[in-house]
Amino acid sequence: MIENSFQIFPVGVIRKKDQSVSIEIYEKYGDALLGLDEYTHILVLIWFHESDRKMLRETLQVYPMGNAENPLTGVFATRSPVRPNPIALFSCKITALEDRIIHVEGIDAFDGSPVIDIKPYIKRIDSIPQARGPKLMKPSWKGVEAK
Amino acid sequence: MIENSFQIFPVGVIRKKDQSVSIEIYEKYGDALLGLDEYTHILVLIWFHESDRKMLRETLQVYPMGNAENPLTGVFATRSPVRPNPIALFSCKITALEDRIIHVEGIDAFDGSPVIDIKPYIKRIDSIPQARGPKLMKPSWKGVEAK
Repeated sequence: MIENSFQIFPVGVIRKKDQSVSIEIYEKYGDALLGLDEYTHILVLIWFHESDRKMLRETLQVYPMGNAENPLTGVFATRSPVRPNPIALFSCKITALEDRIIHVEGIDAFDGSPVIDIKPYIKRIDSIPQARGPKLMKPSWKGVEAK
Repeated sequence: MIENSFQIFPVGVIRKKDQSVSIEIYEKYGDALLGLDEYTHILVLIWFHESDRKMLRETLQVYPMGNAENPLTGVFATRSPVRPNPIALFSCKITALEDRIIHVEGIDAFDGSPVIDIKPYIKRIDSIPQARGPKLMKPSWKGVEAK
């Protein structure tokens, strides 16, 4: 079972221009957007293509924010792009929706990053104001993730 | 670009027993859990293996909850397992964490479903109480997703 693998297809791409970020859904998948205009927020799954390298996918612990003053942490307890399956998840606000272009706030990803799924953000199941975690980590040390 | 694909490896599996649900992380990935005990909630990404079929992955619109009284909706505006990349996302509470077993509340997935990623739920970025959507859909018609 552990040796199985599954295949993911990009359904769109991140476009960044100056400070604005949008998601372009490929024409082939445009029909999948019907009704999305009824939501204010979405969940966006992105493939961290820069981290899709064997060595990074085998790295299981990192210093959060690439800062060695933070405690060494398992990647399942961080949002690091370094992880076995380099999937990023962003909860973000739709600022405008025109045809196959979704303009959003709150996505920190490279221009050209492959988008692999869009889901509506449903407050009843996705918003957990009582969730707790450790105190904030120290900020990025060098602007890159250390291993 | 649209013809590219990416490879996903299962990192664990859903175990259901009576009403209790747990995630077993495979031994190979156990080190990735370090520090997860500091969080109360996690985001769990699961591969909907029952929907990993060409016909379902090419279905772009569904009747939510499999009820034809609901409006035909694009899969990116639903949480249906029918979608181009059959990834499920659950925000859930950790009820207990022992070694590589995470006991959780709030996952509705089949026993044996492959787990592909675990992320900490971070209230500051993941909880959006102001998110809005359409009114609740009518409930399941036949207990299965219609196309």
